[in-house]
Amino acid sequence: MKNRAPLLTVLLGSIILLNAALTADAQSKDKAEIRQWLDQWAKAFRAHDLDAIMSMYAPDVVAYDIVPPLQYVGKEAYRKDYAQFLAQYDGPIEVEFRDVQIFVGHGVAFVYCLERLNGTLKSGQKSDVWVRVTSGFQKISGKWLDIHDHVSVPADFDSSKALLDLKP
Amino acid sequence: MKNRAPLLTVLLGSIILLNAALTADAQSKDKAEIRQWLDQWAKAFRAHDLDAIMSMYAPDVVAYDIVPPLQYVGKEAYRKDYAQFLAQYDGPIEVEFRDVQIFVGHGVAFVYCLERLNGTLKSGQKSDVWVRVTSGFQKISGKWLDIHDHVSVPADFDSSKALLDLKP
Repeated sequence: MKNRAPLLTVLLGSIILLNAALTADAQSKDKAEIRQWLDQWAKAFRAHDLDAIMSMYAPDVVAYDIVPPLQYVGKEAYRKDYAQFLAQYDGPIEVEFRDVQIFVGHGVAFVYCLERLNGTLKSGQKSDVWVRVTSGFQKISGKWLDIHDHVSVPADFDSSKALLDLKP
Repeated sequence: MKNRAPLLTVLLGSIILLNAALTADAQSKDKAEIRQWLDQWAKAFRAHDLDAIMSMYAPDVVAYDIVPPLQYVGKEAYRKDYAQFLAQYDGPIEVEFRDVQIFVGHGVAFVYCLERLNGTLKSGQKSDVWVRVTSGFQKISGKWLDIHDHVSVPADFDSSKALLDLKP
């Protein structure tokens, strides 16, 4: 029987190299897709487009929002929270992202950034707040869906004040 | 020349199956390691062991903590924050995790949970707070290191109060 070892070595070596190349390529594609997710979200949020916003979330999303309670469990609960938040504003809410960091694995990703929300409340008052945002994603049927949001401002323990006027 | 197609088919099929098995196995191993990270962190935190805590973080960690500023950039800044927090307590700080969810990819993971911190302040006053925690991890040289923390309580916008007494 002919010795097949050289063929197998070349084949396995090629598979390993191909795998590494595909992984690097997939990672940069995944990062670009997560960045697109953020921009698409900002566009939908600016426009108060609740359906477009919610189409970007997984059914079993759990959110720790800037407002109580401690957690919103599931898409329906989080949708109501979004609707209440958007209803406070009159007209577009401008979104600015800063210091965005994106980490991608195999079908799993998370991102964190500072986020400025800037708009006019229905009372006529201007609102301009910097919040901290962390989001976790899962790739489901080839599409990145947000499965976890955490949005907050820091707290001052002595006064029990929420610090809504901090700037980066 | 002998037809090598059957051999190649079997070989490639075996590689694909092996790959899937290894992935599933690696995922459950990774999840167990992240869970161990949490328990190890709780033990070090309870004991005020700052070195043990900081050995679990990546050098370029960025933290959004419950206290200001908006962000702590890098391990040294975060270490000072930890030191100040721990210094407020007299004796052990008990940690309870609830509703822990762990997501793992290839070298990337994130976790979210509710966390109860329970101890006695140096003033003699008892402190018992539920916070929301999200952490992001990278596997660096075979070890999971925390590269991002987000810890918070919700805020009441009308009163600007930080809600430090919510319970799940």
